[in-house]
Amino acid sequence: MSGLESAEPTRAQRAEVAAHLSARFGVELRVPDIPTADQLELRRPRLDPPGSLAAFCRQDNWERAYHSYGYDRTDHAVFGHYPNPPDVVAHPRNESELEAVLDWCAGSGHCVVPYGGGTSVVGGVTPPEDRGPVVTVALDEMDRVLEIDDVSRAARVQAGVFGPHLEDQLRPAGFTLRHFPQSFAESTLGGWIATRSGGHYATNHTHIDDFVESVRMLTPSGWWETRRLPGSGAGPDPNRWVIGSEGILGIISEAWMRIQARPRFRATASVTFPSWASGWEATRQIAQAKLWPANLRLLDPELAADAAGLDGSRSLLVIGFESSELSQRTDIGRAVDLARAAGGTVDDADIAVDDGERDGSGRPGGAGAWRRSFIAGGGGIGAAAGLGLVAGTFETAVTWDRWPAFDAAVRAATLAALDEVCGGGSLNCRFTHVYPDGPAPYYTYLGAYRVGSDPAEQQRAVKQAASEAILAGGGTITHHHAVGRLHRPWYDRERPEPFAAALRAAKRELDPGGVLNPGVLIDP
Amino acid sequence: MSGLESAEPTRAQRAEVAAHLSARFGVELRVPDIPTADQLELRRPRLDPPGSLAAFCRQDNWERAYHSYGYDRTDHAVFGHYPNPPDVVAHPRNESELEAVLDWCAGSGHCVVPYGGGTSVVGGVTPPEDRGPVVTVALDEMDRVLEIDDVSRAARVQAGVFGPHLEDQLRPAGFTLRHFPQSFAESTLGGWIATRSGGHYATNHTHIDDFVESVRMLTPSGWWETRRLPGSGAGPDPNRWVIGSEGILGIISEAWMRIQARPRFRATASVTFPSWASGWEATRQIAQAKLWPANLRLLDPELAADAAGLDGSRSLLVIGFESSELSQRTDIGRAVDLARAAGGTVDDADIAVDDGERDGSGRPGGAGAWRRSFIAGGGGIGAAAGLGLVAGTFETAVTWDRWPAFDAAVRAATLAALDEVCGGGSLNCRFTHVYPDGPAPYYTYLGAYRVGSDPAEQQRAVKQAASEAILAGGGTITHHHAVGRLHRPWYDRERPEPFAAALRAAKRELDPGGVLNPGVLIDP
Repeated sequence: MSGLESAEPTRAQRAEVAAHLSARFGVELRVPDIPTADQLELRRPRLDPPGSLAAFCRQDNWERAYHSYGYDRTDHAVFGHYPNPPDVVAHPRNESELEAVLDWCAGSGHCVVPYGGGTSVVGGVTPPEDRGPVVTVALDEMDRVLEIDDVSRAARVQAGVFGPHLEDQLRPAGFTLRHFPQSFAESTLGGWIATRSGGHYATNHTHIDDFVESVRMLTPSGWWETRRLPGSGAGPDPNRWVIGSEGILGIISEAWMRIQARPRFRATASVTFPSWASGWEATRQIAQAKLWPANLRLLDPELAADAAGLDGSRSLLVIGFESSELSQRTDIGRAVDLARAAGGTVDDADIAVDDGERDGSGRPGGAGAWRRSFIAGGGGIGAAAGLGLVAGTFETAVTWDRWPAFDAAVRAATLAALDEVCGGGSLNCRFTHVYPDGPAPYYTYLGAYRVGSDPAEQQRAVKQAASEAILAGGGTITHHHAVGRLHRPWYDRERPEPFAAALRAAKRELDPGGVLNPGVLIDP
Repeated sequence: MSGLESAEPTRAQRAEVAAHLSARFGVELRVPDIPTADQLELRRPRLDPPGSLAAFCRQDNWERAYHSYGYDRTDHAVFGHYPNPPDVVAHPRNESELEAVLDWCAGSGHCVVPYGGGTSVVGGVTPPEDRGPVVTVALDEMDRVLEIDDVSRAARVQAGVFGPHLEDQLRPAGFTLRHFPQSFAESTLGGWIATRSGGHYATNHTHIDDFVESVRMLTPSGWWETRRLPGSGAGPDPNRWVIGSEGILGIISEAWMRIQARPRFRATASVTFPSWASGWEATRQIAQAKLWPANLRLLDPELAADAAGLDGSRSLLVIGFESSELSQRTDIGRAVDLARAAGGTVDDADIAVDDGERDGSGRPGGAGAWRRSFIAGGGGIGAAAGLGLVAGTFETAVTWDRWPAFDAAVRAATLAALDEVCGGGSLNCRFTHVYPDGPAPYYTYLGAYRVGSDPAEQQRAVKQAASEAILAGGGTITHHHAVGRLHRPWYDRERPEPFAAALRAAKRELDPGGVLNPGVLIDP
């Protein structure tokens, strides 16, 4: 569970956030009491595990309540709302126990929800309703780095490992995966692979997809294990059928991952631009020059004001290079040259080059502060749980030719919905990842619930407006948050129908009982 | 057809090659006469196209003989061996005609073989036997660049276009796809996508896979068209189910491809190493430093002697960088530093940096000569057709930790087979592509048929020995030559069985009659 509870905000912290937000929105927000697990009255389990599985299965309130949700658990937790908990939570400690629990469920028709770290924001780990008993499977006991191949720079890793623990095991050998999604501390390797998570690198190899050398996934029809290969042209890539399958084809048990030598050389610069448009135009040019910076994160003027104290008119581009072998001085110089030629401003003194003399834990002000905030998460929204905010994020990717009209339409639609639902609100945008052919923008919105309406309904209305605008503008419903159940209505329109038919057929073949994560990605 | 006939060797050229090889192998090789299409007596077509399709369907001898084979046609052509020609060769001129021909075949159960450019070396476009009438579909009439998006750097291209014609259409706008498989002149975009072809870039984005922004594929169940996106995390990537599907799920009609601004800056160096092992060790270090050179091709001492006049003990590494925006002077310097530190030798005078002052058509001696030979093809084997040689190439990819033992085992097995089959022969190796976690080696072998045995059987024996060694050593049966029918026995052992079951189920769903390229990749 990676220390989630210790990271929870205290009552005093929550009160402070409530006061701040009350002032900001001109309303009076109250801090509700949060019930403990003992106080919950959950539906009785509809089934018990066979005795042979009892040693690694749990049915207590805390386990069942915790595994009722993904990252959307906070609001529900605050109000003690757990109408559909899993009946059993299995924590297999090895592949034999994993086989035993999947055999039991597939044989008996019980739904299986692979849990990962439970950071889904799209209902990807929520027990389905109307499908009878549910067994949630969490691999947190299978969390070891089993082998490191330091010649090929690859490691065999169990899928249940959380981000920090994975890095702890690679560090002594001088390696790192350097895959840092926002949920890094609380999500697992298996979850990253199952959801095509987006990571540390802002350009080139942005998704976990590129770091998977081979996978081992248990399906109801047996083990799907691919060969360790640096590349292949033999048929459709069997790794790419697993990556993004969100638990509907099987449970990922382990993977050989491409790892990195730890960076010793770094170079960073924060460049400001007189407008949002001039910032994204520079970003496009740097991406198309294929310098492949590790960091190329652009903040719109609203976010640059909030996060870095800019004046609200200028956008901010954070550029970063890193290497284990080579000084990045030339690289940052070339990127800065391109940025300046495109209208950017940066003092020479603010171009930081670290040629390995420091340990790399500190960084110059602007870029470092932003980086910590990015990894730590959504900037205080957790502490605002239960306070009555319509708050959320959505992200996408779109080609450059469509981007300006796309951004305008998405902003207009989202702000109009916030206006209608909350009587106003705010929206900002950053690029988390950038490709030669388009950006991956990430939007954050915030408003206050209107008293007298259903809060969940208000949240849905904003999300709906944003998603419709994304689809209409030519974007994808998700660049790295996955589909789960929440994104289904738009995913169903985005994907080609023959592909959906093929995916359904593949699932029927592997999982004839349809027990694996029903309702995610496809209907039976 | 891209001018194949005009590129064929003359009788005089073939006689010269025969004399050269006779001297080399100590045998007397004779140049046989090649029958013309009129002289062939082909099996009568087993069906005729409906009248509505007649305008774009052909049944003459030349069409049917030509489309009887892929790149292995030469030996058969020499001896007039065409036992199983397609019954109809369709050349649809637009998507309506493509739909009409697929409707006809799917409705009547006739096999459909998508032909591409017909450069398959693995039987991927050979009409299946024992499956009744066969309709081969060639998209060579659908060969236009339909749109260029110069902001996103992407182009919408019809799948039937051959390499040179594609480049001709991109050049006026200042763009290039820069995908140059060895078969470049005679293969098509659709074929590249269907077979996951390996291209120009030796590192980073090596396969066509990375340049596909979206695809449009006709299946018997309708159009599979993906959305143009720079990236996405929405479910398993539907492009990756099409890429590598080798015509068994549908016929690719067009694609949005990521294109490049034409390179103006180049830098190259040819570095020699005292051994094969020191050459590959340097190559690994350069690949792991992630400088991402466009060219990083390593020749073993045998090939370096043949192709570049080295002394037979030294290996040769050709390093090349290119960019449309930035001088590559620093990049080549850093790569050369790494190569020298790893024991490589190169004179400063032999490091060539072109900062856009030349037009780029010429290159310094070593690298240019090698590049022309690579793109032109297999170095004279075509002209040796029918002369009695056991000659061929095979390629793979394998992780670095396995590579030294792998290379030794593959060489031993192949040379032993050549010894047994031909009484001797030769083998050389180069790296065509290199990854941080392993190389993609490409082997070429040559021997003389032993008189009195079946030549095809001798060829098969050598291929079999090499393929077994590849599988046993941890490689893939193909890094970029595809699977087709020839590689099936090893592909079937390489891929995970649940994946094969899922692929079969997907095919049954999309192509319930099983008409599309039966026997390729999977059995029904």
